[in-house]
Amino acid sequence: MNGADRLCEELLANDIDVCFANPGTSEMHFVAALDRKPRMRCVLGLFEGVVTAAADGYARMADKPAATLLHLGPGLANGLANLHNAKRASTPMINVVGDHATYHLRHDAPLTSDIESLARPMSQWVHRIERAEDVGRDTAAAYEAAMSLPGVATLILPADAAWGEIPETPVARTMLPPRTPVDEDAMRQSVEAIRSGRRTALLLTGKALRADALETAARIADATGVRLIAQMSNGRIERGAGRVPIGTVPYPVDIALDALKDIDCLIMIGAQLPVAFFAYPGKPGRLVPDQCEVIQLATRASDLKEVLSRLSFELGVKRDAPVTVSQPCTDWETLLDGDLTEDAISVAVAQFMPEGAIICNESLTSARRFFGLSHRSAPHDFLSLTGGAIGIGIPLAVGAAVACPDRKVIGLQADGSGMYTVQALWTQARENLDVVTIVFANRKYAILQGEMRAVGATEFGRNAQRMLNIDDPALDWVSMAKGMGVEAARATTVREFVDLLKSAMAQRGPFLIEAVI
Amino acid sequence: MNGADRLCEELLANDIDVCFANPGTSEMHFVAALDRKPRMRCVLGLFEGVVTAAADGYARMADKPAATLLHLGPGLANGLANLHNAKRASTPMINVVGDHATYHLRHDAPLTSDIESLARPMSQWVHRIERAEDVGRDTAAAYEAAMSLPGVATLILPADAAWGEIPETPVARTMLPPRTPVDEDAMRQSVEAIRSGRRTALLLTGKALRADALETAARIADATGVRLIAQMSNGRIERGAGRVPIGTVPYPVDIALDALKDIDCLIMIGAQLPVAFFAYPGKPGRLVPDQCEVIQLATRASDLKEVLSRLSFELGVKRDAPVTVSQPCTDWETLLDGDLTEDAISVAVAQFMPEGAIICNESLTSARRFFGLSHRSAPHDFLSLTGGAIGIGIPLAVGAAVACPDRKVIGLQADGSGMYTVQALWTQARENLDVVTIVFANRKYAILQGEMRAVGATEFGRNAQRMLNIDDPALDWVSMAKGMGVEAARATTVREFVDLLKSAMAQRGPFLIEAVI
Repeated sequence: MNGADRLCEELLANDIDVCFANPGTSEMHFVAALDRKPRMRCVLGLFEGVVTAAADGYARMADKPAATLLHLGPGLANGLANLHNAKRASTPMINVVGDHATYHLRHDAPLTSDIESLARPMSQWVHRIERAEDVGRDTAAAYEAAMSLPGVATLILPADAAWGEIPETPVARTMLPPRTPVDEDAMRQSVEAIRSGRRTALLLTGKALRADALETAARIADATGVRLIAQMSNGRIERGAGRVPIGTVPYPVDIALDALKDIDCLIMIGAQLPVAFFAYPGKPGRLVPDQCEVIQLATRASDLKEVLSRLSFELGVKRDAPVTVSQPCTDWETLLDGDLTEDAISVAVAQFMPEGAIICNESLTSARRFFGLSHRSAPHDFLSLTGGAIGIGIPLAVGAAVACPDRKVIGLQADGSGMYTVQALWTQARENLDVVTIVFANRKYAILQGEMRAVGATEFGRNAQRMLNIDDPALDWVSMAKGMGVEAARATTVREFVDLLKSAMAQRGPFLIEAVI
Repeated sequence: MNGADRLCEELLANDIDVCFANPGTSEMHFVAALDRKPRMRCVLGLFEGVVTAAADGYARMADKPAATLLHLGPGLANGLANLHNAKRASTPMINVVGDHATYHLRHDAPLTSDIESLARPMSQWVHRIERAEDVGRDTAAAYEAAMSLPGVATLILPADAAWGEIPETPVARTMLPPRTPVDEDAMRQSVEAIRSGRRTALLLTGKALRADALETAARIADATGVRLIAQMSNGRIERGAGRVPIGTVPYPVDIALDALKDIDCLIMIGAQLPVAFFAYPGKPGRLVPDQCEVIQLATRASDLKEVLSRLSFELGVKRDAPVTVSQPCTDWETLLDGDLTEDAISVAVAQFMPEGAIICNESLTSARRFFGLSHRSAPHDFLSLTGGAIGIGIPLAVGAAVACPDRKVIGLQADGSGMYTVQALWTQARENLDVVTIVFANRKYAILQGEMRAVGATEFGRNAQRMLNIDDPALDWVSMAKGMGVEAARATTVREFVDLLKSAMAQRGPFLIEAVI
């Protein structure tokens, strides 16, 4: 066997059986090895940004990593923006980045680059395999890093480490170290803060936002009066009717400051201190008051459900106390005919999405009402853009659909960001994934037009218009989708949209609705 | 005025009046400043890989840099693969990468990343502006670096340096330092080698491949018997009928070794030592024989035309000696009806392209006959993929067309690499650029299938097929192009193709031909 075979076996031994890939010449031995392992499902992306976002979406839903296969520095570079998002979501992932054979690097061949320098900013862990004999050990270390940190582990595989022959040895599942233990000091401080009567909030993210963890948190809140807030952007929230509702830290800085102004003590459970997404002249970066005490009760390396249970126990909260959950909405706003608006789309999707839907949200301005409305929708998962690097939506849906073939995936997709990784539609078609992509076709970078006004520019000249509008020519999403093998249709009225949405919900397979607003 | 205004003025003072852009919130003050400068032409790309490749194509044809405007680390990351190509072409370029306000970085907001670490592998020069007062000096330094190295200069512009108010001061053109002087030792060695009677070759790239420099080189060759070879990939070659023909170092390693095996001394004029594109087990990396003497007569920092003139003078070559140039072809292969083949496309384009055409070649396997045929075509420029990072072709054509609005730009585009930056079609439509894109729709990564066979895999299993074929579903380029506002048509026979090509050559504006082969 060669190093590449060993890499595949190590992945499979750890139940990593999906590889999102876009290979190149230096990875041919790895491709050949994958070809000898039919248990591994190889999913091609026509661009590496598709590959990395799909691996992110997959892991968020499967709770285990996918592998990626990327070609040298430029292939990795193409995937970096979505690795940035995955890193911010602490998504476990194993990137396998091929490199030239070790001895070839000194020639500075045209595709040579400093892969480590590129990988580090967007990975929690980076390692270069030295030789074929190390592939097993190093792949196990990558798996451990991806699962324990948790996060993006980037493993650089030189071609000679892939093709080098090594003895065949049995491969066992990698034993993971115990999770980070509870920080007893932070636990004591948290209990004291909650009991002190000061206005205290729990800031949650990661697996603390799964349905059962949220119930534990809600029992704490009901018993003690503590507030629950989710981080601004989260990899995944389990929500909808029958589940505990939770709001997120708002994006607009003034609204966020107002929302957090009454907090005396913030207890962070996996989350980071809330800060402004961008700096604005004269406005603070830290969103909680200066005098607010901040306790980091747990990081993402901890078992956040366990931490919440322990906190509940320390506070003497009853484990079986009833919790207040969202009630299904039975009086949805009646949708009438007329021009389509972004809010009408939000209402319709919230109303008609099926139980178990997975929402991939990359519609930052247009779907802003959706989050508030949908806590009374059928139970669903909500996946966000976690790192602010646009171009995640369409491929994130690919990964979620590969992980959960029996659930409907719905992409709420802005048009500007959708164009970043539009190639992912082809993978939806090839894999026949059950994804409905709803494009909010407002034909502009709406969020930037808002930001432009915020810097005092109320009238846009030619240059600003040429950079902030994408209406000339208008993108024809129906044609683009068909060009990549995805059925599509356009809606310009509420009635058309609702009809298309209902029919898309009733059928299986990829579909795209261009909602012209 | 603020720092962003100053940056614009500094660019304009140095005659940089095109900015390829995809802005974000942290660049809003820069966008506002550009909006106050109508002399600056802002060209939007719907993805940053479009932006950087367009800037590359522009500078190759305009012989001056364009600016780019990129949003933070992820925006830069999306542009890196094509910056890699630009760096390998030594293309002068000024990337302006916005960053958070300096004082905001400590908050580690979601879009924060290590921009320097990302920029360095794909830039010849990287600098972070500290404050608004430094913008003028630092932009001048970026311009000097881009022009003198020459290459990719990446300038990081924190939001507070952009919005900070500074006194208005007059801005003058930046004085560039003198070019690197001729290396007298290397010149002496070169003259001796050529006179020694040993089999000597000049390896050329950069501006040594412009028509006049090639004539100087050809006079040296005619007078001394020295061989002329161009580097494997070059930013731009002026060629065609009436110009000096020159071959390039072949890509397949065995053919390259054979082509270079008889060289005793290689004199490199701007070029790098020829090496194998990839390592293959048991094959050498260096393509010239071990005993071959190598003289670096000039690097890309030198005036290569001047170096050739000086070499000619030292060798006593007559300055007005006639040179052998390519003769126009008058007996083109007769194209008959029948199924379309890649060679038929090459013949047709070589035959029917107009004088002054600019060929952007990203069809690595399919157009392999084109280069050999077209040295007898009408005089034209030939632009290559210089760094091996696929996804350059469609946006490279955007930049070339912006630089040369009166010339026909023809893209020879593989389908696999075309999908990487397919969004560039939209910019072709928006700017109404005179670009004809010819897609070689073979529906596979043909180059990888060849490499796969080279590693001994003659039969492809399911996983290999799923990673190396892109025929399921077939990409419909006509629909995709129309979706982005570009007229398009499909050809499946030679006759259809020739008719479409001739009509595309006769009209102006963007057009795409999907050539199904």
